[in-house]
Amino acid sequence: MFERIRQARRTARERVELDALIEDCRQLLTERGESNSLVIAARALERYRALSEPAVHQLFEVLAGEFDPDPAVVLQLAQAYAAEQSPENLIALMKAAEPPRQELLRRLNRAPDGTGALVAMRARLLQRLRQQPALKSVDADLQHLLSSWFNPGFLTLRQVDWNAPAQLLEKIIQHEAVHEIDGWTDLRRRLEPDRRCFAFFHPMLPDEPLIFVEVALLDAMPAAIAPLLDRRSVPETREDRFKVAVFYSISNCQPGLRGVNLGNFLIKRVAERLQQSLPKLKTFCTLSPIPSFASWYARVEHIESPRLKPAVQRELNAGLQRLRERHGRDLSPLVLPPAEGAPARSRTAAADLQMMQRLCAFYLTDTSPTEQRASDPVARFHLNNGARLERINAAADLSRNGLRQSFGQMVNYLYDLDEIESNHDRFVNDQVSTSKAVLGLL
Amino acid sequence: MFERIRQARRTARERVELDALIEDCRQLLTERGESNSLVIAARALERYRALSEPAVHQLFEVLAGEFDPDPAVVLQLAQAYAAEQSPENLIALMKAAEPPRQELLRRLNRAPDGTGALVAMRARLLQRLRQQPALKSVDADLQHLLSSWFNPGFLTLRQVDWNAPAQLLEKIIQHEAVHEIDGWTDLRRRLEPDRRCFAFFHPMLPDEPLIFVEVALLDAMPAAIAPLLDRRSVPETREDRFKVAVFYSISNCQPGLRGVNLGNFLIKRVAERLQQSLPKLKTFCTLSPIPSFASWYARVEHIESPRLKPAVQRELNAGLQRLRERHGRDLSPLVLPPAEGAPARSRTAAADLQMMQRLCAFYLTDTSPTEQRASDPVARFHLNNGARLERINAAADLSRNGLRQSFGQMVNYLYDLDEIESNHDRFVNDQVSTSKAVLGLL
Amino acid sequence: MFERIRQARRTARERVELDALIEDCRQLLTERGESNSLVIAARALERYRALSEPAVHQLFEVLAGEFDPDPAVVLQLAQAYAAEQSPENLIALMKAAEPPRQELLRRLNRAPDGTGALVAMRARLLQRLRQQPALKSVDADLQHLLSSWFNPGFLTLRQVDWNAPAQLLEKIIQHEAVHEIDGWTDLRRRLEPDRRCFAFFHPMLPDEPLIFVEVALLDAMPAAIAPLLDRRSVPETREDRFKVAVFYSISNCQPGLRGVNLGNFLIKRVAERLQQSLPKLKTFCTLSPIPSFASWYARVEHIESPRLKPAVQRELNAGLQRLRERHGRDLSPLVLPPAEGAPARSRTAAADLQMMQRLCAFYLTDTSPTEQRASDPVARFHLNNGARLERINAAADLSRNGLRQSFGQMVNYLYDLDEIESNHDRFVNDQVSTSKAVLGLL
Amino acid sequence: MFERIRQARRTARERVELDALIEDCRQLLTERGESNSLVIAARALERYRALSEPAVHQLFEVLAGEFDPDPAVVLQLAQAYAAEQSPENLIALMKAAEPPRQELLRRLNRAPDGTGALVAMRARLLQRLRQQPALKSVDADLQHLLSSWFNPGFLTLRQVDWNAPAQLLEKIIQHEAVHEIDGWTDLRRRLEPDRRCFAFFHPMLPDEPLIFVEVALLDAMPAAIAPLLDRRSVPETREDRFKVAVFYSISNCQPGLRGVNLGNFLIKRVAERLQQSLPKLKTFCTLSPIPSFASWYARVEHIESPRLKPAVQRELNAGLQRLRERHGRDLSPLVLPPAEGAPARSRTAAADLQMMQRLCAFYLTDTSPTEQRASDPVARFHLNNGARLERINAAADLSRNGLRQSFGQMVNYLYDLDEIESNHDRFVNDQVSTSKAVLGLL
Repeated sequence: MFERIRQARRTARERVELDALIEDCRQLLTERGESNSLVIAARALERYRALSEPAVHQLFEVLAGEFDPDPAVVLQLAQAYAAEQSPENLIALMKAAEPPRQELLRRLNRAPDGTGALVAMRARLLQRLRQQPALKSVDADLQHLLSSWFNPGFLTLRQVDWNAPAQLLEKIIQHEAVHEIDGWTDLRRRLEPDRRCFAFFHPMLPDEPLIFVEVALLDAMPAAIAPLLDRRSVPETREDRFKVAVFYSISNCQPGLRGVNLGNFLIKRVAERLQQSLPKLKTFCTLSPIPSFASWYARVEHIESPRLKPAVQRELNAGLQRLRERHGRDLSPLVLPPAEGAPARSRTAAADLQMMQRLCAFYLTDTSPTEQRASDPVARFHLNNGARLERINAAADLSRNGLRQSFGQMVNYLYDLDEIESNHDRFVNDQVSTSKAVLGLL
Repeated sequence: MFERIRQARRTARERVELDALIEDCRQLLTERGESNSLVIAARALERYRALSEPAVHQLFEVLAGEFDPDPAVVLQLAQAYAAEQSPENLIALMKAAEPPRQELLRRLNRAPDGTGALVAMRARLLQRLRQQPALKSVDADLQHLLSSWFNPGFLTLRQVDWNAPAQLLEKIIQHEAVHEIDGWTDLRRRLEPDRRCFAFFHPMLPDEPLIFVEVALLDAMPAAIAPLLDRRSVPETREDRFKVAVFYSISNCQPGLRGVNLGNFLIKRVAERLQQSLPKLKTFCTLSPIPSFASWYARVEHIESPRLKPAVQRELNAGLQRLRERHGRDLSPLVLPPAEGAPARSRTAAADLQMMQRLCAFYLTDTSPTEQRASDPVARFHLNNGARLERINAAADLSRNGLRQSFGQMVNYLYDLDEIESNHDRFVNDQVSTSKAVLGLL
Repeated sequence: MFERIRQARRTARERVELDALIEDCRQLLTERGESNSLVIAARALERYRALSEPAVHQLFEVLAGEFDPDPAVVLQLAQAYAAEQSPENLIALMKAAEPPRQELLRRLNRAPDGTGALVAMRARLLQRLRQQPALKSVDADLQHLLSSWFNPGFLTLRQVDWNAPAQLLEKIIQHEAVHEIDGWTDLRRRLEPDRRCFAFFHPMLPDEPLIFVEVALLDAMPAAIAPLLDRRSVPETREDRFKVAVFYSISNCQPGLRGVNLGNFLIKRVAERLQQSLPKLKTFCTLSPIPSFASWYARVEHIESPRLKPAVQRELNAGLQRLRERHGRDLSPLVLPPAEGAPARSRTAAADLQMMQRLCAFYLTDTSPTEQRASDPVARFHLNNGARLERINAAADLSRNGLRQSFGQMVNYLYDLDEIESNHDRFVNDQVSTSKAVLGLL
Repeated sequence: MFERIRQARRTARERVELDALIEDCRQLLTERGESNSLVIAARALERYRALSEPAVHQLFEVLAGEFDPDPAVVLQLAQAYAAEQSPENLIALMKAAEPPRQELLRRLNRAPDGTGALVAMRARLLQRLRQQPALKSVDADLQHLLSSWFNPGFLTLRQVDWNAPAQLLEKIIQHEAVHEIDGWTDLRRRLEPDRRCFAFFHPMLPDEPLIFVEVALLDAMPAAIAPLLDRRSVPETREDRFKVAVFYSISNCQPGLRGVNLGNFLIKRVAERLQQSLPKLKTFCTLSPIPSFASWYARVEHIESPRLKPAVQRELNAGLQRLRERHGRDLSPLVLPPAEGAPARSRTAAADLQMMQRLCAFYLTDTSPTEQRASDPVARFHLNNGARLERINAAADLSRNGLRQSFGQMVNYLYDLDEIESNHDRFVNDQVSTSKAVLGLL
């Protein structure tokens, strides 16, 4: 009973705060707000941070509903612009068509730590988007502005090493998304002289890594992930041995920056930086997972593509059927090392393994309409960046996750700095750049 | 003859470069450009920097003509949005109505030193605006983006003192626009413990002050500028004597940021900073010029305002006529100190001096439709920031410039941090906040 | 066979290197060496670093034997100075009596990283001192110079927090000597807002902490160590709750600096720094172990001191006998919490506990000739710094180590900044400053 | 009358302060002082800074008189050490022979800004040395300690450029001792890309340059100073043109560090640094004045040296006589450009000019007993550093000062990094390394 009263009071108090916050937002957009915007913006964000979860959702709704452009005005100005394309007409139209919400967000951004608050706000908004699709317009405005503010010209590339602040390293441990970092000893191995870690930072969030990449410096392109991650391996310190830089992990730290292009720029800046400091490096490549090959394999029934020679298409379909018959929908056993004392891998097994790789090659390079470019997100990311599909490695990741996703296969994507532009160009036109070896599989 | 050929060749070569640059711009906007935008943007800016003056003007024309939104598409989407205000319709409209030029500029900004290049580009564009009014839309886009990137949340306030790098101090000397700095000795006096200088910086232009303000710390609100600028005056070092902070000069350093609100935020941030480090400071004010009082006085024929009591209006008009009769259109002689041996200022002269100040008070506070708020730009700036018109000082600036602009008068605008918001509010509603003393003059 | 040859060759090569190094040392001391000393010193230290263990010992011997002052010359100059105390005679004597070894060490110090090399060299030398007592003179010279170079005027006090470089924090973990740090989570708790860590650094060894102290900020003087070290305790963040700063651990990191006074200055500088940033702090104290009480208790047979009243002396001797009879030489069981279900501590046990504390109070304050001041090294350190013996806490450290050293007792030494000087003064004259509570025990 | 009383009172107050300061010094040396030395040292230095000039002189006397070693004790220990050279005897002797003053100074150095205070104290002491020769022992102790603390291993080399703090550049202007810097414009020219300036700093005096050198980067070894100093000359920015680094000015900033070897190390560190950043630099040389050639020429009567061939000696003496007869004791007119319209330089004049250079070559290379090595201080400095006398340039410095000192002649000393060691070695043995060209003059 008392609890209900207390709850009611809390709700009432919250309602008052939410109303005050919405009033702040309105005021920020008035002429008066422009002059005192710092004070009002700081106040508004302080109120925002104190809101309960439901109140935040109500705020989002208000933001989505109240700060849209006026349809009648926009229409009228669009007609005027259509009638005469004068600068004046264009400027008037542009101003009217931009949601006032954008100006509101720009003014909130002026507050101390405003940028951090808006990035965090978008992270929350994205979690609500499915339940409240009407918030899409708010999200579009936030993404539009954050893309402008977090453009690569404003970002700083910093190397993260064992001399970095512990609080930063702690965030690296926490955000590593591809190959989990198991504590400080594991991290330390990844920062030895034959490993590198680089992160992007924004001047307004100097302690927050936005995205980071981990690199291994090796003498040859690697075919398996386990040796790279082995924390007991002895670091190679002779720099003249480093021929290949392998981007083996790339992780975003800020969910609020989803859709803001960072990874592409990071890889290229890091490649340049490494090239400068280690001129003997010849090769920049990845060792990447294939997150959805297994699920594609499990559901695909028939292989067909105008790009395949009919004979090859027949072979693949026959192979697919054979694999299904022999192994069902899980090919993992093919790659697992035979139990002790068991007979060596048979010739049939070897043929099956090769067929799996051929199917994988098809899967990664197929851009026929049904599959719409490489359907694998990692492949799409690197190919769109201008990388080349260089090598498919069987038995490259025997972790539970690796077997589940791709029956242990991993891919090397190659960044040839001279070909990036043309590769990307081809990919835009539905062609995947591949090495001869991968081409040979088809 | 040879010269003509050489000239022709140069022109041809330039034409090729300009075309290549325009091609870069188009490419930057394609899908392909997004992925390789850093490389292309850097190349484009390098080409831009090498262009001759006429080629730059041609480029501006292309920017103004080719990167506008498509009127038909915008109109269609405006109609759809008018018919149904769904998020999808809004997002589509917003994207179509924003000139592609903005995305182009955002991508140019990604290049190393891109931000500096765009600020410099706008400075050039502003110089062309009168001859080529069609460039207005390009300017609007640049201002829109620069306002977003140079918002106060991204700026750093730094104190400039005698420990600052010489190259920075050199820029302060060069950009001081109100009271010229006459070399390093003069500058040094302005950085002694009873003077302060603060500037805004942007993370992307760390060596470039954007705007700076000079402050004198005194024991009372000053009535004349000469003692503040006297480079032989002995610095006061006892901090407990500082009661008043006087903003006696504020100067922009970047013509390319015209229209981007910086001064308002600078004054308030500096006032806050000073308040923190010197809690005994009670008063924040300016000692400001009145740049256009003399020219207003020269052309005004009749004083009339609904806000004036009829009696006062009659007095002012009579006074105006009397001053004109006795002194013509130049009131400077009234304030100049009498020559040696000359009789002391007569009672008539004293009355004339007071009448001049009354007219000045009227000039600065009149917001009747014909004069559209305070027509004096300095008054408009401070009043709009929320300052109060505190005191009009006769014989405050006897330099040639001071006599020419305002017959030697200067104004103290008072920043009362508690009243800023309401003062600004009133000013937006055509009311000028004044002290009782100024009110008394009317 | 081959191995023997190889070994012989290696030894021969080493002999050559050692001879070359000794030659470098001689040359460094010649006139010629002064001008090129940087080059020669760098070469010598490089050779030194490559020496095998036995070669280092040979080098130490040479240093001890060859670089002594000439006795005849010194004697002659001492006679001259005794005859006439002119500045010239004094200067000549001083130069002759200083071992040339000191100038040699000063010149080695000029090499890049020379200071670090000399600190490391002394650490090795100290390990040899027992076997080679002749090295004492080398050690005296090294200590003399290091004391001059590591004087507190040259040291920087830096706070070590979670923002410090990981490589530095790793050294803190490694060198903590009083209460072991069990990994990064444990460390992190010790750097939360209610804990502080400060270290001294030398400009020439910017990444090497020399000595560090750990501080807990509490609301009252603590009587037990476990709550301070509990890594799951919730950090107190309200600064106004901090009344007492407890120095609970102080650790040297550089064995090569043994005998160089650092701890005394560290504690006082930290106390000052804390006082400034937290003016509400009223008390600065320690919670310190008593490393050798148990061994004293085990061997003491009779208590006797001219400072004790005869009655008290009798009581203590009677108590000592009683404790021995009842508990033998290990009093730990007295402080351990009774097992579950066991009867509460009896009245006798309480009396025994108190007697133990009385004996401890005697032990810590006795400065009679036989015991020569406080024989406990920790007590000697703090009392000599000017601290007061404030409180003896029974059952304060129930760890194995705590029970073994002092049957679980710990001491609070109090640093009263106003009394430090006079307390130190008294201690020099064999008087220990104590609180009334401790006095009451006697 | 009143003035006398006031004066007497002031003197009495001063006497009290001086006594208190001396008491502080005594206390600093006691056991008690060691523990509280920071507090006492800070207090002592504060008192010292407030002393009047006469009181400082009194203090110096006390320092010279009271803190000497005990002659009897030293003698006794010297005898013991002569009897047996045990480490214990040596350590005891060493401790007794070192003036307690040194320990006093080391403890004063612990105070905040203690190092700066001691450097300033020595500067004052040096000014008194002539009047109070008894202070020599204090000076010896100060120099001994400052040499140890300002050893090159502790110094930081920093480039001083236009980005340096104004307060630092101001000190450069003020301390330039060779070729005066005439204001900020002149300074700026000396910091352009074809000029360099480097200074040594000590960690305890981070804002105080200790010594600095100015360097010109040229394409050939320069024969005259005026072009190097011409502030209107256009800076060369193409780094591949820089073949020669000319040290054209080296200035000490701290009179208190006289006798502490800094210049030698500075030149070598700068040469190394330049070599690294500009690998195309082939030659490191100076363009140096000959401060005392003119005064030598004015007083020399007869040239005689065992190193000269008899024929050459005869030629030089004949030449000396001829020059004296024709030009008296001032040879300046020989090098001044002929007045307009005057006849070109005659053959006789050319011969006289050459004879002057021969005499100069003799002067700079003569090391016969009477002249005790190169008697020119600049020559002694560079030759002792290991430089070679490369070229004597007539008419190289036509400034008033240049004509007065050396009839306009200047010298290039060459630093050949490979020969420095052997050149220095030869110089120590009274041999001056010269180029063939200079050798040819003799």
